[in-house]
Amino acid sequence: MIDETAIDDRLERARDRLAARGIDALVCFPSSNMYYLSGFEDEPMERHLFLFVSPDRALFLAPEMYDHQIRDESPIDDVRTWSDDEDPTALLASIGDELDLAGGQLLVDDRMWALFTQDLRKTFPDASFGLASAVLEDLRLRKDDAELEALREAARISDAVSESVRELGPDAVGLTERELAREIGRRLEEAGGDGVSFETVVGSGPNGARPHHRHGERTIESGDPVVLDFGTWTAGYPGDQTRTVVFDGDPPAEFEDVHDAVLAAQQAAIDAVEPGIEAREVDRAARELLEKRGYGDRFVHRTGHGVGLDVHEPPYITSENDRKIEPGMVFSVEPGVYLEGEFGVRIEDLVVVTDDGCERLNDSPRTWRPLDADS
Amino acid sequence: MIDETAIDDRLERARDRLAARGIDALVCFPSSNMYYLSGFEDEPMERHLFLFVSPDRALFLAPEMYDHQIRDESPIDDVRTWSDDEDPTALLASIGDELDLAGGQLLVDDRMWALFTQDLRKTFPDASFGLASAVLEDLRLRKDDAELEALREAARISDAVSESVRELGPDAVGLTERELAREIGRRLEEAGGDGVSFETVVGSGPNGARPHHRHGERTIESGDPVVLDFGTWTAGYPGDQTRTVVFDGDPPAEFEDVHDAVLAAQQAAIDAVEPGIEAREVDRAARELLEKRGYGDRFVHRTGHGVGLDVHEPPYITSENDRKIEPGMVFSVEPGVYLEGEFGVRIEDLVVVTDDGCERLNDSPRTWRPLDADS
Repeated sequence: MIDETAIDDRLERARDRLAARGIDALVCFPSSNMYYLSGFEDEPMERHLFLFVSPDRALFLAPEMYDHQIRDESPIDDVRTWSDDEDPTALLASIGDELDLAGGQLLVDDRMWALFTQDLRKTFPDASFGLASAVLEDLRLRKDDAELEALREAARISDAVSESVRELGPDAVGLTERELAREIGRRLEEAGGDGVSFETVVGSGPNGARPHHRHGERTIESGDPVVLDFGTWTAGYPGDQTRTVVFDGDPPAEFEDVHDAVLAAQQAAIDAVEPGIEAREVDRAARELLEKRGYGDRFVHRTGHGVGLDVHEPPYITSENDRKIEPGMVFSVEPGVYLEGEFGVRIEDLVVVTDDGCERLNDSPRTWRPLDADS
Repeated sequence: MIDETAIDDRLERARDRLAARGIDALVCFPSSNMYYLSGFEDEPMERHLFLFVSPDRALFLAPEMYDHQIRDESPIDDVRTWSDDEDPTALLASIGDELDLAGGQLLVDDRMWALFTQDLRKTFPDASFGLASAVLEDLRLRKDDAELEALREAARISDAVSESVRELGPDAVGLTERELAREIGRRLEEAGGDGVSFETVVGSGPNGARPHHRHGERTIESGDPVVLDFGTWTAGYPGDQTRTVVFDGDPPAEFEDVHDAVLAAQQAAIDAVEPGIEAREVDRAARELLEKRGYGDRFVHRTGHGVGLDVHEPPYITSENDRKIEPGMVFSVEPGVYLEGEFGVRIEDLVVVTDDGCERLNDSPRTWRPLDADS
């Protein structure tokens, strides 16, 4: 639950920006934006559930069955409901009249479904439409103390589970990826997490060479490099951390060199982070190092992504993004090298930008070697 | 993984419908529609990943890092990739030239994010936009044998876990809702399910009166009615089943009458299902019964929703929907009564429409009384 003062403050800053840009209303759909501005959250759904924020108002349009929950969870007490036997677009039109939206400028949630943007366009055919991020991205980029505290706790849990899973050592050999993924999920819950923040990645052997392989029925073998990428939610904020490990036996000949290169690339990117530089300079630091080591063409993704209420959010650390890095931003630094048919290596930590550099939120061991069970 | 012949058949039927309506292309975003038509699935994401289906073509626009996975999982082998250091809208424009989309008629995935529909509108400013469901809804409504088999298995697992959880009896008293929800999740996995198909609902006592309460820190007490609504995935299809139970002790005075009314309403709705009637007649059967019993105004939601690749999909069983019921449709029948501040009762089964009525996919006991541990 978000503190009511924080909601008021966020709404005020959002409204100031709307007014300054001549925007008539921001329309959020169930998403991190809705949660950020109201304290109410739910999954995206097929029923009309919108939060309208205008320069001087904030109100919900919601299914009747959500009325009590919204009032409990959000300080915004203007909730207009429709029931399952009514057409919600009639209510939408009447709110439009009230907020004078016909011919207005609307910003819709970046993740609003086309199903609903089509409805807004039909209901307000003369309005113009932009994206909510035009106003909200800037607010959400810099994390406040409560957000950082939640992100630190989520990182602590990921680290603890990373270490405990590595202590399986040879016992992990013979498990399927799916079995290990479930075990990781159980340990994240036991450590105090609230579900997985994304589908756990266990990429063993050649499956590790697919950056977005999740987990399958392959059995982990001795000598397999295994990419472990997972996290859990804490107070609404996610963990996201990756280690590439060898539970037992000797990895393929080239593995040690690749792991060493990725580790060096990650360090180079982290060393590059400081307020005032552009996001792409962080990406470049990792990419140049991997190019020097001969793996440039095997690093097939960006260096990182922002992390906050969404697991992936701005700032994106790509080779093109010229956004300036600022204190309070939190993002992942996760270079990887993928040798199709053989194995993959990715090492990922979250960092928070400080006044003169950055601080890692994760600090579990980055070595691929089995951890000494006594350590 | 979907059988290649099934994909070919679905694509052919989709294309015939596109051609018949003069649609130039269907544009899917990672969703059940993309999976249905291609066999490739992933979570919605911030990177451009589209499936284009035109009357004579099918091709992917995808991030480079997804190239191998798409080729492995989908028989559609035309995959155009962009890398994280490129602007994907250039590739989008070139595909538009190739498919002659400027000024065309496009259908976009109903769940495509505004982030991407805005991009499509900018890239093809003279095109007109509709929703993919205009073509796909009709195809997906009737389940084939493989789909029904997966839905039956998911229902079987939900039933088995429902019974096993009820056998906790007095042992459930003293657990928090969250603890019981986690236990249900564990048992669904142990029974062969693949994660929960939606956040498990454990609505104890007054929390049960909030139809979309998930689970919280409230401790289950003796005499509490508890709404248990959960399911798991099997082969890509979900379970969704609800029972309202009393683990131990005597429920509130009015509870038995409410439970009896809801059970009768559910039976009335199920009895009403047959091919050729309108969806709203099923809703009406449940609603009229609850009105007669004096709870009409406490039944604040629709009677059901279709279930397939999405947990909520057409046909929606509302008081307004005049869509005709057809054999092969699968939907939930789940009337509920909610007494704010006291308790709620909901009873839900999935049904598949047959040639002369319907068949329940769930058959765990519907009684609220503790099950005999020996039964």
